[in-house]
Amino acid sequence: MTSNLIEGNQRTDRVTSLLSAIADVGRDSARGGYSRPVYSTAELDLRSWFIAEAIARGLDVETDRNGIMWAWWDTPSGDRSGAVVTGSHLDSVPGGGAFDGPLGVASALAAVDVLRAQGRQPDRALAIAVFPEEEGSRYGIACLGSRILTGAISLDKALALTDEDGNTFAEQSAAAGLDPRHMGPDPERLAQIGAFVELHVEQGRGLIDLGQAVAIGSSILGHGRWRLSFTGQGNHAGTTLMQDRRDPLVAAGALIGQIPSVARAHDGARATVGRLQPIPGGTNVIASRVDVWLDVRHPDDAVTAQVVAEISQRADELAREQGCAVSVREESLSPTVSFDAGLRRRLEVTLPDAPVLDTGAGHDAGILASHVPTAMLFVRNPTGVSHAHEEHVEDADAEIGAEALAAVLVSDLGLGPGS
Amino acid sequence: MTSNLIEGNQRTDRVTSLLSAIADVGRDSARGGYSRPVYSTAELDLRSWFIAEAIARGLDVETDRNGIMWAWWDTPSGDRSGAVVTGSHLDSVPGGGAFDGPLGVASALAAVDVLRAQGRQPDRALAIAVFPEEEGSRYGIACLGSRILTGAISLDKALALTDEDGNTFAEQSAAAGLDPRHMGPDPERLAQIGAFVELHVEQGRGLIDLGQAVAIGSSILGHGRWRLSFTGQGNHAGTTLMQDRRDPLVAAGALIGQIPSVARAHDGARATVGRLQPIPGGTNVIASRVDVWLDVRHPDDAVTAQVVAEISQRADELAREQGCAVSVREESLSPTVSFDAGLRRRLEVTLPDAPVLDTGAGHDAGILASHVPTAMLFVRNPTGVSHAHEEHVEDADAEIGAEALAAVLVSDLGLGPGS
Repeated sequence: MTSNLIEGNQRTDRVTSLLSAIADVGRDSARGGYSRPVYSTAELDLRSWFIAEAIARGLDVETDRNGIMWAWWDTPSGDRSGAVVTGSHLDSVPGGGAFDGPLGVASALAAVDVLRAQGRQPDRALAIAVFPEEEGSRYGIACLGSRILTGAISLDKALALTDEDGNTFAEQSAAAGLDPRHMGPDPERLAQIGAFVELHVEQGRGLIDLGQAVAIGSSILGHGRWRLSFTGQGNHAGTTLMQDRRDPLVAAGALIGQIPSVARAHDGARATVGRLQPIPGGTNVIASRVDVWLDVRHPDDAVTAQVVAEISQRADELAREQGCAVSVREESLSPTVSFDAGLRRRLEVTLPDAPVLDTGAGHDAGILASHVPTAMLFVRNPTGVSHAHEEHVEDADAEIGAEALAAVLVSDLGLGPGS
Repeated sequence: MTSNLIEGNQRTDRVTSLLSAIADVGRDSARGGYSRPVYSTAELDLRSWFIAEAIARGLDVETDRNGIMWAWWDTPSGDRSGAVVTGSHLDSVPGGGAFDGPLGVASALAAVDVLRAQGRQPDRALAIAVFPEEEGSRYGIACLGSRILTGAISLDKALALTDEDGNTFAEQSAAAGLDPRHMGPDPERLAQIGAFVELHVEQGRGLIDLGQAVAIGSSILGHGRWRLSFTGQGNHAGTTLMQDRRDPLVAAGALIGQIPSVARAHDGARATVGRLQPIPGGTNVIASRVDVWLDVRHPDDAVTAQVVAEISQRADELAREQGCAVSVREESLSPTVSFDAGLRRRLEVTLPDAPVLDTGAGHDAGILASHVPTAMLFVRNPTGVSHAHEEHVEDADAEIGAEALAAVLVSDLGLGPGS
């Protein structure tokens, strides 16, 4: 497939030149990589960059009432029903890579350039969508924008989410110019979408092993997030004898040390704690509470539930050993999503050499999949590392990805030759 | 002792009225209690309060080049040599109590009122000192102000310390109006001090058990802080198989779970992790690094070293099990401090009913003790809890403490009757 796409179309640097323009936005000197939480200065700068790039291409840009940006390439009739939508997100995890999110947005813009260079004119409206808070790194729930759009989370719950500084999602959305009273499910918007294709950097080693630049996504592993709150008795680290302590961090630490053995007992399961917060968090203070965020994923949703149940029971035992208590709260849960079979078959015809891979990473495409025909493309990541600064995409692979996306938009999604 | 002090002097609310004026400064609604890190708005507000209260008492206030405030009650001659100094600190741990620090400052102001009400006039200059960053909650090293004053820390190291937001101590000191170029050891200042007495809320249960309001301090347990940095491979929590991980938080957690058993093997040892930071700290991100702060204390400094050695070895084993590495760095180490024997005997004469207690908590008095005759008074804390909002002092005990401090200043430290 790859060579066909490149033939007759000189190698360009469409994607890499787009990404190079934002290479300095939101760099995190402490962690390495990028920290671009939703509605931070960095993410707002990226939004401005996207709007400018979309306008430069003559696209009609709107930010909807949920903070999702849409850049429209309209048909002459102006009819937007059955629109073909592609896109991704611009927010990052703390210290994330340059490609997780922005690659899909830049590739969508580049695909428009490819189609323009081919003299094509859409028979159906095309839109590039950019979703807020895909990572959930600020408010704790991934794909928050698409969840609100589809009603997968109640608006009240979403608006009340707080970041580490105690700002609610409602407050930060308002600060970003949105009116929280007008947010919420948007069935009219969803009804406009004929198909959604998200291109994304691969976050594992699948394409490395297969020696391919681009893959078609088959499914997203079911995954969820749970918050475990261990509570004990805050006290002075110097004056409190060991036998007088009820230290919740001892229980939480022991649990984190045991999680891999729980997960490994279930083939294919992944269980991770990457974030925890001792309260108050002083060096000379026994914590009074520790919040631990647990991420669990497995292709079989029943196994995910079993892993969480085993970890919760272990947490309860360890907390009681320390004279502490623990509560476990589900923050989000997404069952395994298989992408639309018909759409995937059409992608396989267009990209006959592309392997088909599932992924353990969540995406807005997974949230949209229960409402509209949805597909994904993955672009090779030669390090296999993601959510870290080592994440990488070779320039050539990025261009191949954009060409593949353009080809999918043309041949599978109703874009015809220019009139 | 207590009844003698109250007799002939109607019960007052000197200390409690002083503390009630600052009861709303730096409240931490998230953690409970107070968060008053050095040079924060809250701590600067407390400094302004102190300056106003000192000026209202006719004291001569100066902030020295190290950010230590001194409020002088001068003799008629203006000679400040051999000065009697009392005081404490105004900064707090995150979510700390109302008394740790401010009680000593308010009691010193109240003691001046007691002495004035008794018509006394100092034969030797009296000063109330307020030290910055006693808790080390912002820059990681406790008693930073007194360490700089005495040269117990190199100025270069102190100025380069950073808080969680990456601000250096030099930058924040400058923002607070100090010139970092002029900071450093101040032997002339130390030479002025004839004796230093710090009154502090008790941070354990000693006085509860003894049914007394005030104790005399005998010694401060040796203690230190170490930073353990576990390093592994940051990666995506969903796409990285359990067997492909090098997760430093798994190693750090296991270590924290095992620390109590290490400490309990050494009678009287206290080992605590109350603060740790996974980097980058995202829910869906395997950490690339985890910093863990370890606090260890024991009356015998050799035992402290042994506990740290055992924990370090355990950390190394656990890190290697996860394919990770760990480095251990000493951030501060204070040997066990016994207060001046002569000064303590004089306090025992003045306060014959006061028990003598050691403490596991560090204090500026412990740093000054190797340079000037130093003593401490502790005031009963009916919860036995400190570094948490439950820390408490009954109003009556606070007044008794101030009267005891005044008595110590009069009878032991050369303050004579008014001329």
